[in-house]
Amino acid sequence: MSDPDSRMPSGFARDQDGRLLIAGRPAEAWAEDAGDTPLFVYDMGLVRARIAAVRAAMPPALRIHYAVKANPMPELLRALAPLVDGFDVASAGELARATAAGMAAHAISFAGPGKRDRELVAAIGCGAVLSLESAGEAARAHAIAARLGRQATVLLRINPPFELRGAGMRMGGGARPFGVDAADAPAVLEYLADPVFDFMGFHVFAGSQNLDAEAIAEAQAATLDLVAGLAAAAPAPVRLVNLGGGLGVPYFPADRPLDLEAVGTALSQRLAARPAILGKSAFALELGRYLVAEAGVYLTRVIDRKHSAGKLFLVTDGGLHHQLAASGNFGTVIRRNYPLVNALRSHGPFETANVVGCLCTPLDRLADAVTLPETAVGDLLALFMAGAYGRTASPEAFLGHPPPAEILADPLKGSGTDP
Amino acid sequence: MSDPDSRMPSGFARDQDGRLLIAGRPAEAWAEDAGDTPLFVYDMGLVRARIAAVRAAMPPALRIHYAVKANPMPELLRALAPLVDGFDVASAGELARATAAGMAAHAISFAGPGKRDRELVAAIGCGAVLSLESAGEAARAHAIAARLGRQATVLLRINPPFELRGAGMRMGGGARPFGVDAADAPAVLEYLADPVFDFMGFHVFAGSQNLDAEAIAEAQAATLDLVAGLAAAAPAPVRLVNLGGGLGVPYFPADRPLDLEAVGTALSQRLAARPAILGKSAFALELGRYLVAEAGVYLTRVIDRKHSAGKLFLVTDGGLHHQLAASGNFGTVIRRNYPLVNALRSHGPFETANVVGCLCTPLDRLADAVTLPETAVGDLLALFMAGAYGRTASPEAFLGHPPPAEILADPLKGSGTDP
Repeated sequence: MSDPDSRMPSGFARDQDGRLLIAGRPAEAWAEDAGDTPLFVYDMGLVRARIAAVRAAMPPALRIHYAVKANPMPELLRALAPLVDGFDVASAGELARATAAGMAAHAISFAGPGKRDRELVAAIGCGAVLSLESAGEAARAHAIAARLGRQATVLLRINPPFELRGAGMRMGGGARPFGVDAADAPAVLEYLADPVFDFMGFHVFAGSQNLDAEAIAEAQAATLDLVAGLAAAAPAPVRLVNLGGGLGVPYFPADRPLDLEAVGTALSQRLAARPAILGKSAFALELGRYLVAEAGVYLTRVIDRKHSAGKLFLVTDGGLHHQLAASGNFGTVIRRNYPLVNALRSHGPFETANVVGCLCTPLDRLADAVTLPETAVGDLLALFMAGAYGRTASPEAFLGHPPPAEILADPLKGSGTDP
Repeated sequence: MSDPDSRMPSGFARDQDGRLLIAGRPAEAWAEDAGDTPLFVYDMGLVRARIAAVRAAMPPALRIHYAVKANPMPELLRALAPLVDGFDVASAGELARATAAGMAAHAISFAGPGKRDRELVAAIGCGAVLSLESAGEAARAHAIAARLGRQATVLLRINPPFELRGAGMRMGGGARPFGVDAADAPAVLEYLADPVFDFMGFHVFAGSQNLDAEAIAEAQAATLDLVAGLAAAAPAPVRLVNLGGGLGVPYFPADRPLDLEAVGTALSQRLAARPAILGKSAFALELGRYLVAEAGVYLTRVIDRKHSAGKLFLVTDGGLHHQLAASGNFGTVIRRNYPLVNALRSHGPFETANVVGCLCTPLDRLADAVTLPETAVGDLLALFMAGAYGRTASPEAFLGHPPPAEILADPLKGSGTDP
């Protein structure tokens, strides 16, 4: 039987008493700080280390953006703002959070296929960059910018004719609601020559959550070719190319961490050899999950321990209302366990348990047939990979439980709690 | 090409101008009342009609309970409270909503595998009925009732050794976190003889969302046999048997509506012939989805109309943040379209469109390759079957959009809006 702790992501360890440490403190201490369970703890030290690793691996001039949708906790955004070169947002709500966190408006890009007029007003009004998704949206932005007497700074988002091979979510290579098909781009680019627009460049997002460095490098190279081909039709020199994201994190035992060096090396080579028409362009990666997922832990307490038909169930006070993806109900075809350990015990004897949430639905599963040290009612369980697409990507109001606490464990600043 | 309107649930029609009517008013009028889109409108007239149909089909003494988790909108709960015989809740939050809606505490049952101590305090303190899920929970309830100096009124939930054949969610027939296995029930029943408990009866929930009357009748018959077998070991006469729910609604074209009369006739026969030991027992059905799903409409406006790789996309201001189940991401293996129509137009020419939400994720699909009248930007689309497991069963905070309005369209009382 393999050691259950082998499933802990790197960056986490136990103290001499076997207690799980998060940012150097026992998990139970964070639960005490929160005053209740369940809760999320985000280790800002791990986020910083990840950003540093990305900077070290990538070409020096590459801009690193944070995709706010991955985790919009205000305290986290405040801590991230000075560490990255921009925020990518997907709604006026996220735009407001981004500016409140101290990110300069011109370093915020707003993408999304269904922007409302009032969202275009907010973005153009504050000087954020619009990632235009269609000819229709360009026309609406034109009207609004003219009415406001403001220039609209825009990227044109292109639906790439290729996909990111093996991505968790494919966002190119066929009919998509995102961006403008490459074939239709020249007409839109011509429209963007209107002086009400400040054309900044292109945005291409080919897929997400990919662990294959070669596939990512391939998609980035294809993106460069695609953009270079369109640049001649652009109304102004391309100042920025947002290359999208796609860098994945390992959720499951069979997953091998992404070879970040390989991605960086390939991108450096491609950028060094890029066509002259992109010679003065800047390039950006937009990373959400890759920066924060592994830094987050969801802590939930065991409420009941019961047997049914020969199987052991550990019933917790958490559940899919905070951890929809971990329950296997968000973009998942076959449910697999996210890594989970007992935060108080690491030694055997071991047992096999089904860890479930507190919701009165069979969908509420946190770990099926997982090996754990013998676990008592009151024990704290730690579900890892909870830093991205956790709280806000879950149906928090389902069954009427109170919201979970979120704590940013920041060794540099003390810890911030957003209740 | 079949008429797109053929997919509208019964109870909905258009006026002479082709506008969809909800509770007798055009959909657009409800959107104007709300002041924005997207929004939910629940037709209380349809809910009343459904309750009346259930009462007419079922044995006269059968209690009809509403499962609050299906839709906990406060205005809806207030309207439902006088129409049903009880509310079933799954958290202290739902318990508070149920009492605030005017339901007497003794008519509220609280089930759920992970009840917190503070939730047991709330339930025992107000005199609600606890549906006990395990021996461990019984022991916690004992301690809390003793401390409060209150008797705890309890049902014992039994994990049935059978499942509801063909149910959308199976909740019996094997190892489950819900209730006590029948084999373990006698020991718990003995424990419940303690005078701190007021033993009321049994709760058995074999499955949900089933359209097969015969399968439901079979499960109800098996439930009666199961409970009759356990009643001899009970510490007091069985005053109430909660038979669970399971009555399904038709989401998809191939679905045939449940034969409610057949369920009622079979249950009447079974109850008339029930064993003497249950002779003085009352029986209850707990219905959530069946009472409210078909009464709800989600209205969302078309923000953009675009083509990609030869396919038409209609991008709306709604999405999976309000309609997770409709997007195919909640307990669904194969995504199928919920019924959707253009609320402003019913006549051709027709076109085939992919209707997507406004979120920047490929998961955000509302209808794939659906036939609609040619649809313009600004048109209002109506997604049906939105009355249950809609707003609160969706990740509302995902991507930071504002909450949708909810309107209870009640011809008897005027309309209530919960913002």
